[in-house]
This record gives sequence, C-alpha cells and structure tokens, in this order.
Amino acid sequence: MTEAATPIDFYFDFSSPYGYIASQIVDEMEKRSGRPVKWRPTLLGVTFKIMGQVPLVEVPMKGDYARNDFARSARLHKVEYRQPGKFPVGTVAACRAFYWADERDPASARAFAKALYRAYFTEDKDIGAPVTVVDIARSVGLDATALAAALEDPALKDRAKREVESAIAAGVFGSPFFVVDGEAFWGVDRMPMVEEWIRTGGW
Amino acid sequence: MTEAATPIDFYFDFSSPYGYIASQIVDEMEKRSGRPVKWRPTLLGVTFKIMGQVPLVEVPMKGDYARNDFARSARLHKVEYRQPGKFPVGTVAACRAFYWADERDPASARAFAKALYRAYFTEDKDIGAPVTVVDIARSVGLDATALAAALEDPALKDRAKREVESAIAAGVFGSPFFVVDGEAFWGVDRMPMVEEWIRTGGW
Repeated sequence: MTEAATPIDFYFDFSSPYGYIASQIVDEMEKRSGRPVKWRPTLLGVTFKIMGQVPLVEVPMKGDYARNDFARSARLHKVEYRQPGKFPVGTVAACRAFYWADERDPASARAFAKALYRAYFTEDKDIGAPVTVVDIARSVGLDATALAAALEDPALKDRAKREVESAIAAGVFGSPFFVVDGEAFWGVDRMPMVEEWIRTGGW
Repeated sequence: MTEAATPIDFYFDFSSPYGYIASQIVDEMEKRSGRPVKWRPTLLGVTFKIMGQVPLVEVPMKGDYARNDFARSARLHKVEYRQPGKFPVGTVAACRAFYWADERDPASARAFAKALYRAYFTEDKDIGAPVTVVDIARSVGLDATALAAALEDPALKDRAKREVESAIAAGVFGSPFFVVDGEAFWGVDRMPMVEEWIRTGGW
C-alpha cells in the first residue's frame, strides 16, 4: 500500500447487522485491495427520516426476510451472530465515542468499534446505553473516565453531527456503505464488487 | 436434472431492472444448479402498497444510487442495458400475457418474457401498453389475435391476480426474488448464494 493510496470510506451504523458482518471481514478486503479503509460510523436514524423510511425490520414482508437473512449472512461469512433482544437501538453514544477515540488513535478506534459490534451482536449488550459504551471502551484499554466526560462535550457532539451530515452528503443511505474513487456500493454482498472495481479501475 | 428436482421459483416484475438482468443470466443458474427454474412474474405495485413503499427510484438518496447501479450491474453481468425513458411502467398487461402464454407452453412463455424485458430495457419500448405487449408476442411467434382477446378475459385476469397473491403469500417483496426449498433470496447479487444453498443443502 503506497502512502498516496486513496482510502475506501466504510460507513456503518452500530445497530446494523450487515454493518457488523462487514466490520468482521473488512480488514481482509483492505489487505487484498491495497487501499486503506477509513471507518466512518453514521446515524441512519437521521438518514431514514430524510428518506421517509422506517427501520428495516419494521417494513412489512421485508422485515421477516431480513431477520432470517441477518443470521444466514453471518453464517455464510463465518461470523458469530446472535440477534440482540433490543433491536434496533439508538447509536448516538457509540458514534460519538468512536470519533472521540478516532481523534486520539484510529487503530484503537477501530478495535473499539469491533468490540462495540461484538458486544451487541454476540453478547446482547445494549450498546444504546452510554454506560455500556464506556464499559466497552474500558475493556479495550481506552480512558473510560475521559470518554464519559467527553460524551457530554458540545465539541464532540458537533464532530459526530458533522460526520453524519458528511455521510448524508456522500449519499450514504444504508449500512454497510462503501465509497471508493467516488463510486458508491451498498451492502455486505457488494464487498466483492468494491474489490473488483478497485482491481479493474471500474467497468 | 431428475424429474423430481424441486424447482427454483423465480419471481420478478417486468418493470424491474434487476429482474431484467436476472432474466438474462438465470438460464445459466438453472444449468449449473440442476434445478428447473419456474418463471413467475408478479406485480410489485400491489406489494409495495402493503409494504408502505414507493418505487425504488422515488426514494430519496436510494433512488440516485439505484439509477447508477442499474447500468453498472448490467455491465458487470455483460447484459445490454438502456434506461427506459418511461420508468417504472405498470406491468399488468405483460404479467397477464405471460400467464396466458405459460398455460399454453412454458418454453414459449419464457422466450416471450425475455423478449418483453429486452424490448423495455434495450429498445425503450413502453411495455406498459397492452398493444406493445401484443406486438412483442407476435414477434416471438405467439398468436397475437388470441392474446389480444384473452387480455380482457376475466379468467386470465383472475389467474394473474392469484399469481400475485401467491407471490405475496410466499413473502416476495422485490425483484428478482428466488425461493428454493422454502428459502428466500432477494436480488441479482444473491444468485450465487442461491446456487451455494442448493449445492450445500443450506448452511
């Protein structure tokens, strides 16, 4: 990977099963593609209001399909999965906490994001609760006390808000959502297409 | 392929770009999987009312993505594609005409379906118009006069209505949509998963 390689923007919502699956396999995509992946959590609740959409599992017919497909897709990708009891959850605290960590050290933020996702989708921990988010931060070696204070900091709230606005401006309407070289790809099942796009320079 | 092989139900709407792409590559899936494919057009306009959804291209943000992705997906699968000027169109005449042909000869009905799709997605013919549907029937050697009369036959209308109800009962909410051995798969990009499911007996 050269210094100048353009990153793949990896957008996701912490309450998204497909975002979780992507988070467990995206490092492999990063290695194979030779492009750095930039992790960019967003808040799809905000986006869905613009779209006039309700959460996936609340859509008649599609919701039933999705419930089966979450676990089936996880099994396909050899990713552990347990449907959370409370689903979906609000992920504003998780999102803010991620950007707090990311400003300090992107590698730690990535490990933290994976831990948040695994806590929610394998241990049924309610990551909608700020206290849980802080606990998970502590478990990966982050400064939990500093984070707990930062979560109420207007500067951090503003940072997260700008990230969500930036995702909307980039056309992000689902999770996972990838943008590379100006081209957008939605869904775990489009990850091979992202790699093919990079390999071929588009078609 | 043995006589007893359970078919793959292939549901689609004649106005669906992804249904069109699937129609151009599904024969290969049929050969590789060793399962006969049963072509089952439906009317997603009816289904979308149940779901509280609007047509894909009318959804903010997602519509822009979809317009780019139709052509991009077609290129990926080496399928000719031209975005129709009038889109989407009502497909009740096309749907009824298909089942009229299917009652006479499923192989002819399949050729007819492909011709309808190609007329719409490569020649920009308005297949929402019954007269166009009849013309296309003629072009593939079907009895156009008999079809034109049948399109107003209450028995045919009822047949098509029952097919749409059957698709809804099977949980079909998009196009293309595949059901095999009770398992549902939505989208062109899930067609490899359909094959994998058959090959492995599920996972």
